[in-house]
Amino acid sequence: MQTDIEIAQAANIMPITEIATIAGLQAHEIEPYGYDKAKIKLDMTVNRQATLGKLILVTSINPTPAGEGKSTVTVGLADALQLAGKKTMIALREPSLGPVMGMKGGATGGGYAQVVPMADINLHFTGDFHALTSAHDTLAAVLDNSLQQGNPLNIDPRRILWKRVLDINDRALRHINIGMGGPTSGVPREDGFDITVASELMAILTLSTDLMDLKARIARIVVGYTYTKEPVTVKDLGVAGALTVLLKEAIKPNLVQTLAHTPAIIHGGPFANIAQGTNSILATKTALKLADYTVTEAGFGADLGGEKFLDVKVPLLGKTPDTIVIVATIRALKHHGNVALKDLNTENVDALEIGLENLGQHLTAMGRYGVPIVVAINRFSADTESELQVVKTYVAQFGATAYTTEVWAKGGVGAEELAAAVIEKSAQESDFTPLYQASDDPIDKLNRIVQTIYGGQGIELSHLAQKQLLEFRQRGWDKLPIIMAKTQYSLSDDAKQLGAPKNFVIHIREFVPKLGAGFLVAMTGSILTMPGLPKHPAALDIDIDENGVITGLF
Amino acid sequence: MQTDIEIAQAANIMPITEIATIAGLQAHEIEPYGYDKAKIKLDMTVNRQATLGKLILVTSINPTPAGEGKSTVTVGLADALQLAGKKTMIALREPSLGPVMGMKGGATGGGYAQVVPMADINLHFTGDFHALTSAHDTLAAVLDNSLQQGNPLNIDPRRILWKRVLDINDRALRHINIGMGGPTSGVPREDGFDITVASELMAILTLSTDLMDLKARIARIVVGYTYTKEPVTVKDLGVAGALTVLLKEAIKPNLVQTLAHTPAIIHGGPFANIAQGTNSILATKTALKLADYTVTEAGFGADLGGEKFLDVKVPLLGKTPDTIVIVATIRALKHHGNVALKDLNTENVDALEIGLENLGQHLTAMGRYGVPIVVAINRFSADTESELQVVKTYVAQFGATAYTTEVWAKGGVGAEELAAAVIEKSAQESDFTPLYQASDDPIDKLNRIVQTIYGGQGIELSHLAQKQLLEFRQRGWDKLPIIMAKTQYSLSDDAKQLGAPKNFVIHIREFVPKLGAGFLVAMTGSILTMPGLPKHPAALDIDIDENGVITGLF
Repeated sequence: MQTDIEIAQAANIMPITEIATIAGLQAHEIEPYGYDKAKIKLDMTVNRQATLGKLILVTSINPTPAGEGKSTVTVGLADALQLAGKKTMIALREPSLGPVMGMKGGATGGGYAQVVPMADINLHFTGDFHALTSAHDTLAAVLDNSLQQGNPLNIDPRRILWKRVLDINDRALRHINIGMGGPTSGVPREDGFDITVASELMAILTLSTDLMDLKARIARIVVGYTYTKEPVTVKDLGVAGALTVLLKEAIKPNLVQTLAHTPAIIHGGPFANIAQGTNSILATKTALKLADYTVTEAGFGADLGGEKFLDVKVPLLGKTPDTIVIVATIRALKHHGNVALKDLNTENVDALEIGLENLGQHLTAMGRYGVPIVVAINRFSADTESELQVVKTYVAQFGATAYTTEVWAKGGVGAEELAAAVIEKSAQESDFTPLYQASDDPIDKLNRIVQTIYGGQGIELSHLAQKQLLEFRQRGWDKLPIIMAKTQYSLSDDAKQLGAPKNFVIHIREFVPKLGAGFLVAMTGSILTMPGLPKHPAALDIDIDENGVITGLF
Repeated sequence: MQTDIEIAQAANIMPITEIATIAGLQAHEIEPYGYDKAKIKLDMTVNRQATLGKLILVTSINPTPAGEGKSTVTVGLADALQLAGKKTMIALREPSLGPVMGMKGGATGGGYAQVVPMADINLHFTGDFHALTSAHDTLAAVLDNSLQQGNPLNIDPRRILWKRVLDINDRALRHINIGMGGPTSGVPREDGFDITVASELMAILTLSTDLMDLKARIARIVVGYTYTKEPVTVKDLGVAGALTVLLKEAIKPNLVQTLAHTPAIIHGGPFANIAQGTNSILATKTALKLADYTVTEAGFGADLGGEKFLDVKVPLLGKTPDTIVIVATIRALKHHGNVALKDLNTENVDALEIGLENLGQHLTAMGRYGVPIVVAINRFSADTESELQVVKTYVAQFGATAYTTEVWAKGGVGAEELAAAVIEKSAQESDFTPLYQASDDPIDKLNRIVQTIYGGQGIELSHLAQKQLLEFRQRGWDKLPIIMAKTQYSLSDDAKQLGAPKNFVIHIREFVPKLGAGFLVAMTGSILTMPGLPKHPAALDIDIDENGVITGLF
């Protein structure tokens, strides 16, 4: 069997100028980056007037080590829609480089449902994440320089929120002491590095509607507090302009293609636990302006990325999804039914029926928004007919239909039925109902997320979180949407509770105000914002030969 | 008076595809990055057979805060050669982003002698430095992960040479403690960040002759020592392939243009104190293959960049310079004659005569290589005729001629005489004599650099440096060229000794083996490898408006 990179390397990639033409972009509206990548100019993305096409949101059950293949289904579905004669575009997130060197597993789909050039997209791509790293760490340097140069803003070095970032899995940088080495080398304090995708600047870049909105959001970032506990912002530090200059190219969406030459916009990559977890507003909007069908995805399961797409992104996007696709695999559902990884290739209908409750909760949760839903079963060779039938019967109870897809092996042809269903569902009137209003109290917002989306009982706030809410209400920060930072593996805040746990409470340890992004992050449990490398990092297997041919990259 | 960025923004920039044609590159030999930047494919740079053109090396007196304008003269001279009907290319270094946000002062020339697009080149350009940061810090993460995962290579955490890097001026990261926070967050140890241009990977990238040479050099990097004091290399860590993959685009030279549309290759940017201080071998070689005249420069004064160009780069380049241009300004020479910055606009022939000894030493030093030399006086409006005459008379004593240039205000037209002299000198037979042989003992190499190039007495080694030399001789590392890491402001190792100090000794504190780059760095005094931000960082004045127009960037 060919690997993903072998399939990608053998692909017949079209010049990006031709893909632009297919997408409806004129030559002067793009900036080529090599042969097969381009940036779309801001004037096009922001100012072009057009009727918006249909929006298809792909989400999934809670992810498992068994794999769900959400990106693969997203790409395959788009290729199938294109095959069905519909003008289609994909809007995906950019992969983070850190995990590429750590754990195998691409973010560009797989098999015959991939976006290409796969290696470039997974490596530096057009430099967006590097620009974010630069801007983030420039701000950190300016902040520490302010401490060094007499601390005119009276910043309390023990209350700084703005850490540093690198797009690398580097656990040794999680907790560090900086400013060692005497008076000429900074003010000593505790600090740490997050991975770049966890930066508030990533959330901001992907929520901005134009360059000036980007600058205004950056200016509002709270970097820490003074000794008198007043917030200190980027505006106070005076570098909103310089940081915007550093992001002037990164804000432009990137154009690539699928193996079947469906135009794909890949732009931005915020985490779906501590941020909104979807590609940029500008990317999605551009695709909606250009195509009749835009297929996009949200990170992790429907409880994290799905909910955030609908409650945080949709109000800024000004467009609600026309169909929601929930991806599941028989393997993953059996894992939710407590089958060990090594036994997933054996038929087990009983375990499957238990695991299906996870899918059931997501069907209920997504169902309450009033958008048509379909289920995509990403088929693996070991799946049996009886197992597939059990899933279909179960899904039918929710008034939805499950379709088998085989896009890894067949590309768009493997999702023809799914595409037909999506076309039919998207033609229906939808009646989008938001989960909460921005003006609701944070407690109400949190309870609604936990009860309606997770199927839990409610929330429990730590003493710190309670104190913070009092402060936030005084500052007027309570009118912001909530980003729940929770494990992706469970509907609850305990990663080990698979399936559909009941009667659980979500414990909120702390809130993190992200005033630039415009949301409050509710931290549950210990959310890791800087991954580590495994015992055998993927980097050990990656190589390149004298002809530039890369091996070992997935 | 217009600022550099205003002149650059008003420029009539030609499409990079047309510049490629002027340079003699076919469409399939470049990869456009937007409208006005491109990468030149490796196949062209490595494999194209062509007679090499003339090589013009621009260097200078010891830099002063008064400014010498070496890059400006380099660009102006190239434009003048192009005006004279010679097929010309420029080969320059890429600017580092850190200082752009710190101290004003571009690295793309100035006035009407600039390379463009100025803002892009000074910001992220084509991402080369970001790729270096990624590769460097991936190696650091893999190293710390090896400590964390049972330390199979028996690495002594107190003897690690490989620090981390960011392309940011951030003094608070010079000395840090990492791996804090308990057993899941790394092994505690002392560490620090350098600026990216100080990375050995930068030196390696710019000395590599092809992709496999790059990989082989990376494999040889010594990252630290075991508890039994044996060197640990990247090969031992197993990531030479992955790091090469991360640099596969960065190794390709970048094509841009001057305001006068002379093709310019801008590639790589190693420091001239702790590394070789010139653009890449591949960039210079590509220009030499394409053009009849290649104008390049070496960092800092002739004692640092000039010497390293001739003794470290030339042997790998396989081409010696046909003319060396030494740039000086009346202002800087007067500063070397101890005139305060505020008094530089007043005529002072006496001080000028004292300061000229600095130029004299560089004329003597460069003269010993057997290459024709000319002096370029980069004229400022306050320079008087008598001052100019004093310089010309002084230079004539060395058998050389000094030419006045006015390229900031006039572009290539301001260097017509200089260009004519360069053409004439380059037509002469040159008889290049290297300063030392690789097989010479390090002590001999050091003494020759100090006595012949700096005009000093000799060297003094610390106890540590003496011990290291014993070790290096045993390991066979003594056959490598020497990179002297010394202050750029003085011929001596004391930054305050301006002019031409005599009878001084260079104190060598420590050697740093750079086996990947293939040289030994001799550290004198305290060389700062991570700059800090000033009280008023340039970032405070940089801004962008709703039309994307940048202000405050120089």
